[in-house]
Amino acid sequence: MEGKVLNENEKAAAELREEFARHGVFVVNLIGSPGCGKTALLEKTLESYDASRRVAVLTGDIQTDADAERLGKYGFPARQITTAGACHLDARMVKKALEGWDLAKLDLLFIENVGNLVCPTSYDLGEAHKIVLLSVTEGEEKPLKYPGIFYKASLMAMTKVDLLPYVPFKAYVAEANARQIHPGIEIVRVSSTTGTGMEGWLGWLEEKAESSYQGTALAVPKR
Amino acid sequence: MEGKVLNENEKAAAELREEFARHGVFVVNLIGSPGCGKTALLEKTLESYDASRRVAVLTGDIQTDADAERLGKYGFPARQITTAGACHLDARMVKKALEGWDLAKLDLLFIENVGNLVCPTSYDLGEAHKIVLLSVTEGEEKPLKYPGIFYKASLMAMTKVDLLPYVPFKAYVAEANARQIHPGIEIVRVSSTTGTGMEGWLGWLEEKAESSYQGTALAVPKR
Repeated sequence: MEGKVLNENEKAAAELREEFARHGVFVVNLIGSPGCGKTALLEKTLESYDASRRVAVLTGDIQTDADAERLGKYGFPARQITTAGACHLDARMVKKALEGWDLAKLDLLFIENVGNLVCPTSYDLGEAHKIVLLSVTEGEEKPLKYPGIFYKASLMAMTKVDLLPYVPFKAYVAEANARQIHPGIEIVRVSSTTGTGMEGWLGWLEEKAESSYQGTALAVPKR
Repeated sequence: MEGKVLNENEKAAAELREEFARHGVFVVNLIGSPGCGKTALLEKTLESYDASRRVAVLTGDIQTDADAERLGKYGFPARQITTAGACHLDARMVKKALEGWDLAKLDLLFIENVGNLVCPTSYDLGEAHKIVLLSVTEGEEKPLKYPGIFYKASLMAMTKVDLLPYVPFKAYVAEANARQIHPGIEIVRVSSTTGTGMEGWLGWLEEKAESSYQGTALAVPKR
């Protein structure tokens, strides 16, 4: 049964991926625990963008449209997906949420998944890259305990690094753990509060989006 | 299909609950995001207990037995449940993990669920109470975004309160949000790092365990 659900999702995700490629939209899927700072990182990101940027956001939650409201303040299209109980986004929810948006007018789409380090991992949304967020308040061992998402993510964004002086978290241990699961994973350290590391994060996005626009998005190995 | 899985779980959970009652074991099921401080709170709790306490711990994770190792250091029985991909514990996993333990020799059993604010909510483990942990690094709006667990939990433990000076989190807002979802929810504020609030947490456990030992455990309304 779960197999069938996943197969249907694969089909919808493949259609999305094709459509994103046709319109040259670079799409990233942000995954992390509740409260790891997904929305805050997106706020800081949108804040940094010039009004001419062709960017949009879909944000998933079980209940409330608080995040779409937060993210809508920056002048870019932002839409909430409320899953009404489901612990992850799936490709059909994304398709439905995109209705009425002209993808030809977009270059970059952020999808903020439901706060959950487990279930969203299994659902392809047609994105070019999965990005896993790990906040320094969560503990260094998370990549070992939740290997699935660290294996599948292209980038690990270590968030809330401004809190490093106040928590026992050792950043280098967390990074070593992530690389033990996925040797090729890229890593940025950021704080949405202080802005530390934002240039690394924004640079990563630019670089990957650029290679995606050159038609290589579909060549990104699916893990 | 999910309905069937849940029904089977209800059956196993009812059997567990009966067995816990027969042996007078008070059981709590700790649920919270990855990194919210479940294991740290249990460490601090076990540390505070005299060696004569008849207490044990089951701890769930998708991978690794790191938590059972951490929790085993305090001289009380501690066993890991590795779910191998599943995003929650279910009653059958708990039954299996209890094999070989003489419940007659236990008064208190902590079950630490997989780090996930969503899926564990639906799986009864035969516990007397669900306890939800919310760390002050996660954001005050979590009860509104993840109402299921806040509705079902008897107690909300607000963790990492030592970090309150360094985060924008407003404790009273989070508490108001939790009570909006579940007016009767009890709340403790704790820090496993500094020990702040531990007496409130330990006192809650004693009080509830005591009424449970008086045969009222089965009368606890199931939500």
